[in-house]
Amino acid sequence: MKTSQLFTKTSKTAPADETSRSAELLLRAGYIYKEMAGVYDFLPLGMRTLQNIIQVIREEMNALGAQELTMSTLQSKAVWEASDRWSDEVMDVWFKTKLNAGGEVGLAPTHEEPFTRLMKSYISSYKDLPIYVYQFQNKFRNELRAKSGIMRTREFIMKDLYSFCIDRKQHEKFYEEVAKSYARIFDRLGIGDKTYRTFASGGSFCKFSDEFQTLCEAGEDIIYIDKESGIALNEEVLTDENLENLGIKRENLTEHKAAEVGNIFTLGYKYADALDLNFNDESGKRQKVFMGSYGIGPSRVMGVIAEMLSDDKGLVWPEEIAPYKYYLVGLGEEGNKKAAELHDKAPELVFFDDRDARAGEKFADAELMGMPYRVVISDKTLANNQVEVMNRKTGETKLLTLDEFEHKLV
Amino acid sequence: MKTSQLFTKTSKTAPADETSRSAELLLRAGYIYKEMAGVYDFLPLGMRTLQNIIQVIREEMNALGAQELTMSTLQSKAVWEASDRWSDEVMDVWFKTKLNAGGEVGLAPTHEEPFTRLMKSYISSYKDLPIYVYQFQNKFRNELRAKSGIMRTREFIMKDLYSFCIDRKQHEKFYEEVAKSYARIFDRLGIGDKTYRTFASGGSFCKFSDEFQTLCEAGEDIIYIDKESGIALNEEVLTDENLENLGIKRENLTEHKAAEVGNIFTLGYKYADALDLNFNDESGKRQKVFMGSYGIGPSRVMGVIAEMLSDDKGLVWPEEIAPYKYYLVGLGEEGNKKAAELHDKAPELVFFDDRDARAGEKFADAELMGMPYRVVISDKTLANNQVEVMNRKTGETKLLTLDEFEHKLV
Repeated sequence: MKTSQLFTKTSKTAPADETSRSAELLLRAGYIYKEMAGVYDFLPLGMRTLQNIIQVIREEMNALGAQELTMSTLQSKAVWEASDRWSDEVMDVWFKTKLNAGGEVGLAPTHEEPFTRLMKSYISSYKDLPIYVYQFQNKFRNELRAKSGIMRTREFIMKDLYSFCIDRKQHEKFYEEVAKSYARIFDRLGIGDKTYRTFASGGSFCKFSDEFQTLCEAGEDIIYIDKESGIALNEEVLTDENLENLGIKRENLTEHKAAEVGNIFTLGYKYADALDLNFNDESGKRQKVFMGSYGIGPSRVMGVIAEMLSDDKGLVWPEEIAPYKYYLVGLGEEGNKKAAELHDKAPELVFFDDRDARAGEKFADAELMGMPYRVVISDKTLANNQVEVMNRKTGETKLLTLDEFEHKLV
Repeated sequence: MKTSQLFTKTSKTAPADETSRSAELLLRAGYIYKEMAGVYDFLPLGMRTLQNIIQVIREEMNALGAQELTMSTLQSKAVWEASDRWSDEVMDVWFKTKLNAGGEVGLAPTHEEPFTRLMKSYISSYKDLPIYVYQFQNKFRNELRAKSGIMRTREFIMKDLYSFCIDRKQHEKFYEEVAKSYARIFDRLGIGDKTYRTFASGGSFCKFSDEFQTLCEAGEDIIYIDKESGIALNEEVLTDENLENLGIKRENLTEHKAAEVGNIFTLGYKYADALDLNFNDESGKRQKVFMGSYGIGPSRVMGVIAEMLSDDKGLVWPEEIAPYKYYLVGLGEEGNKKAAELHDKAPELVFFDDRDARAGEKFADAELMGMPYRVVISDKTLANNQVEVMNRKTGETKLLTLDEFEHKLV
């Protein structure tokens, strides 16, 4: 990609109403555009970043043996009435709208109900189980307050995985596999060292659920970590009884602000009961299906990464999710000619700043946009057959021969 | 993919309320699931097919130099009031809903307005133009009647491309490039020979727009084709004046039912006027931006392909969009062992029916699901080191050596 091909431009200032650093940087760097409070577009650089995050998650979901599909946004009232979640008093984040043909429909805030109903068409015997299905689909939540840019929005993309098992035992095995898969995902996304599997409230389903909480000042949650055991608890479950059961002493806990980047729930029989999802066991007896649900919000994760890994100069993307790996700058006539050549070898890896602008302006944009490596080719480096490569995260600079750099583009 | 890994199953009957052949076959083969009238989920096989169609379109859009991004579904009232399209009397397909925080929002039925507003942040000079941007994004249209399965729905995915040019001349050049790109797309999707670029009403924008109409009995449009010149007209523009201007005689026209698979519009200054999108020309004078819009609905196209290319036995997918290229059946113990081996070499190309079922059942499902080639390995073919390959479309059968077939899997 070349700057001259990209319609977005960077800007020195961000809208006054954005208070979070991630939103400010993502807006200034041209990654996102604000349609209204809590609703954002993903511009070309932002969409590439988001797609890279999605691809990491997809690979790990497929490795679990889960099957991808896409459910609808529009939701039928009857399906949600069956589980008693249609009422605004039970679920206060519904967006609802009316069909011209008559009747009311909702915009999916989550998808347990339609997944459960779908499975009624395909599950009849224990031989059909277990089934693991997931999607990347927009969710709509009518939040009273949207905040922190893309970390808490009214419309956002979510990866939601659902498991359908013959019993709790089969479920628990998969649940732990997903927990491991989530740890791998957050490692690959560059926030593994700051992300804790955290005991949280299980809601109506079971005693605990697991949240994946990333330490982050802009986060909305408070978690407590026992440094010795590595066990973390959401403040909502910080009771003497729980501490005792977990063998943890209150005085060893440290308090942290954190952002929830994933969660996994044991749903048990709640939805199978409500929507009558059964199977015949080996002896031909009807049994309820045991369910679980597992979420990660890729756009929220992108916000958390932008918040945590950025610095005063701008964004800092881990290699696996950066829109481009190299931010290439040519200085002088020969430097620019060579830079253009190198870009053309790998336009998917190289972002070439081909503007007729001062070096300082290009360097500032390189820092703001946050590609992992800034590569400079000048008449001077060329004279030694070299390029200068700076690591965006560490600031470390080294010289590579042209050959060495070209090999990285293959 | 193996049948045993896929949660969907085929069924012999379709819901009684589905009258179109494509919907019946897609439902029976487990490609889609009906949430309610006009709202469908895309199950794993359907999602793969849809993604393949999207990928073909994406490649052609990128070849035009267009940049991909993703706009929001939720739409702010003010932006659409500016163009006078917020009112239900002007745009009768709106879904609207209320924010808990106060205020009304709409679900995007199309995206001209937000794209125009977005560009106000990025277009200032003639040097910024032209700009071509596109997305694959869900559209919501509150149709009174949904029909023909995924050919006319209330929620559907759309590729919409928008062009921003300095003047009509620059616009017209791009417009023709898009028309050629669309022809390539429909060729690659296997419906090129039945798809006509068709004169249609230009609405308020200009005299004509261009529709891409595919001859199809289940289509909702009537078009007239002049066989000699290849010129096609939508019935809405079949006037003596237009015929005379085009140099066509009414008696040479043949009438056809057709489904609209794409459209391209010259928007002119309509939205730039409404939302005040300007640029400075070379002499520093403020000028309005000249716009165009270009749509293809991938899910609708999938329905049209399913409708047109299917036969009495089931679906028939062109190679480029089939979820898997080969439907592999092993007969006998050795045949099944070898089939499993071949599947494992290329699970992205091969759908292996590993069920413990009669050959006839597997063959019937192979026909219903519509993969381009059915491949049978039996103890008998194995004795000659061969596999039997049947072309789903032509029914033609030939024997390949195992080596020849394995080479196709690399």
